Amino acid sequence: MNTNHAPLGPKADKETVRRHNLSLVLRAVRDEGEATRAGVAARVGLTRAAVSSLVEQLLDSGFLSESGKTFSGQAGRPGTVLKVTRSGPAGIGIEINIDYVSVCVVDLAGTDRVRLTEHLDNRGAPPDRVLARAATIAARTLESAAEQGLRPVGAQLALPGLVSDGTVRQAPNLGWNRVPAEDLFARALARLRPAAPALPVSSDNEANLAALAELWFGGLGPIRTFLYLTGEIGVGGALVLDGELLRGAHGFAGEIGHVVADASGPRCRCGSRGCLEQYAGQSALLRTAGIDEDAGAPGLAELERRVRAGEARAVAAVERAGTMLGRVVSGAVNLVDPEAVVLGGIYRELMPWLSPSADRELTSRTVSGLWPPAGGRLRASSSAGDAARGAAGLVVREVLADPVAYGSRVSG
Amino acid sequence: MNTNHAPLGPKADKETVRRHNLSLVLRAVRDEGEATRAGVAARVGLTRAAVSSLVEQLLDSGFLSESGKTFSGQAGRPGTVLKVTRSGPAGIGIEINIDYVSVCVVDLAGTDRVRLTEHLDNRGAPPDRVLARAATIAARTLESAAEQGLRPVGAQLALPGLVSDGTVRQAPNLGWNRVPAEDLFARALARLRPAAPALPVSSDNEANLAALAELWFGGLGPIRTFLYLTGEIGVGGALVLDGELLRGAHGFAGEIGHVVADASGPRCRCGSRGCLEQYAGQSALLRTAGIDEDAGAPGLAELERRVRAGEARAVAAVERAGTMLGRVVSGAVNLVDPEAVVLGGIYRELMPWLSPSADRELTSRTVSGLWPPAGGRLRASSSAGDAARGAAGLVVREVLADPVAYGSRVSG
Repeated sequence: MNTNHAPLGPKADKETVRRHNLSLVLRAVRDEGEATRAGVAARVGLTRAAVSSLVEQLLDSGFLSESGKTFSGQAGRPGTVLKVTRSGPAGIGIEINIDYVSVCVVDLAGTDRVRLTEHLDNRGAPPDRVLARAATIAARTLESAAEQGLRPVGAQLALPGLVSDGTVRQAPNLGWNRVPAEDLFARALARLRPAAPALPVSSDNEANLAALAELWFGGLGPIRTFLYLTGEIGVGGALVLDGELLRGAHGFAGEIGHVVADASGPRCRCGSRGCLEQYAGQSALLRTAGIDEDAGAPGLAELERRVRAGEARAVAAVERAGTMLGRVVSGAVNLVDPEAVVLGGIYRELMPWLSPSADRELTSRTVSGLWPPAGGRLRASSSAGDAARGAAGLVVREVLADPVAYGSRVSG
Repeated sequence: MNTNHAPLGPKADKETVRRHNLSLVLRAVRDEGEATRAGVAARVGLTRAAVSSLVEQLLDSGFLSESGKTFSGQAGRPGTVLKVTRSGPAGIGIEINIDYVSVCVVDLAGTDRVRLTEHLDNRGAPPDRVLARAATIAARTLESAAEQGLRPVGAQLALPGLVSDGTVRQAPNLGWNRVPAEDLFARALARLRPAAPALPVSSDNEANLAALAELWFGGLGPIRTFLYLTGEIGVGGALVLDGELLRGAHGFAGEIGHVVADASGPRCRCGSRGCLEQYAGQSALLRTAGIDEDAGAPGLAELERRVRAGEARAVAAVERAGTMLGRVVSGAVNLVDPEAVVLGGIYRELMPWLSPSADRELTSRTVSGLWPPAGGRLRASSSAGDAARGAAGLVVREVLADPVAYGSRVSG
């Protein structure tokens, strides 16, 4: 959904314009952190009178709050300070991954307010059990949120696989196939909260949501077009173009882990050969370094230890992963011409050993002038680039895009 | 520019809304071909009274014309028929390619009204001479257009290279480097038409503009997200996402010809190895088939003849090009998840020999469910997918997006 520049659609009538402008004013205050009516008017290009009327409505419906403090840093006479409320409408994000479930609630200002994470092994567990566990964690998080005066208006699942129409079409690393995740989660949550109104549930791929979190809460500055790769058991990817996720025709865009790096390489579980995942996924990296590929987090820690110690086999494995990563990313850069390429997941810690070989490949294989891009060479993602926060942020963004639609919807 | 869903920007005031609605009404009539006020009102969701007022303004400023004919095919009482004027504001597109210059004028309805093409060998010729020749052809085309009552309000150059800020950064097949094409063309055109007001000149990559022509004037039906590849001396590409060109951070998106197909393949003139162009560009194809790679159009005709005759070496060359094309396109499909992949240029005629091997590769290398896409297997572009027409169409689209801005700007 395009919310920063929400199109007014064919019929731009008064009511539509007002809803649009309410969103503009609310987002202006959110962006500023603290603002006066005059400051907002200057920022959005509406008259003081119009802004005052819009602000009244946002105060009445609990989206903004006003402090007694005055603020004279901007043009015009001092005004009382407006802020986005710390209570009220919020979003809840639920990341279900291979070895953990993490749930967070984000308020309208984008702050991560409640977080509950359980480390679990979800591989091979029945999907309905995993989703029921996630619902239990979410219900507990919702209790904390309610105690803080927050009322999440929607839940967003972040899932490690191909997600469309509420269903995980495939998540090979979880062993899921055609799992109606939204529905299973929503039912489990409703069973746990029989008295509460149903919470609308959406779902998306976790790399997509991590990329959005990086965009909204990370350190990208003015960058709005980037390629995001995350090293996990597999290799996830997402493309953010001018601040919007590219979803593609089926909602599956960003599957960079299965872009071919070497056509005659090893067979991949997707059926192809020589996919990037076969060189730069966690299992491949560990295996090539001579570490048990199923060792999970301790295995990764061991890989890092060996790389830091300069152990030749480990260093070579990471360098080869970098080369293949650079090769595949060069194709994506030639195709998409992003401002930056961001590496998350296991790549964050491996950057010093990964990026030289990746950068070498990128320099030689991208069309002149495209590498390095304006945003610099390969960037490590920030710690804010996490899928649960991105998921919760997506709900919040929908509220900010049309506050009127969420003014009365209460849950929790 | 996003014109189909033009955002109203921060300040959605009355004047902005009216301009937006004028564009909506004009585009509605254009889309229908012939329409009544009642039909337009139903289509755009405005009242009859509002539409009538907007139509009057569009009639007065010469964007619409009215025929005496009545039309009762739609709801409401019969009304006189509205059409987009066949005279008045128009766009001129100038494609400068390796061995031809083609200029066309497109009217507001999107019809190709005047076309002038000269077959030339532009390789190695000084850029200013090529652009001066293009200006001469354009001036002649403008004369014809003026005689038909058309007044192009802008010129758009379509160029075979990396284009940004009015400059061809590199066009290796023309031998151009950092050529200020817009400026050279505009000056040459002004010298030829000293009495005429200056025509604003823009420029873009020719594959981008051919893809837009395919979108607007070709046979894609409802498809709005697609990957476009065009086989030329090099291999051009463009990505259209939801009806908009992806331009990328530097304006260079779509360089699929230099995506790596085989990392250890032959050296490419871009400095990398094993780029798609080294297998599926015209020179590579001819060379592999045993035909003089500089033979141009006659060489291509010879390739087609041999392939049709089942000559083994020629068939093998095309099949190998198809395999490499499929391999690289599979990566793009995994990344972007388009509704369709369209092949233009020399690939159109070679489809029967090219597509089976490409499709085989695509089927085995794309993530489950992404191939074939909703729009079907590899599609040949239509004859409408030509860069000059797309260039002229881009000018026209700007007029349609904000007719008020172009009501009084006259040229030609």
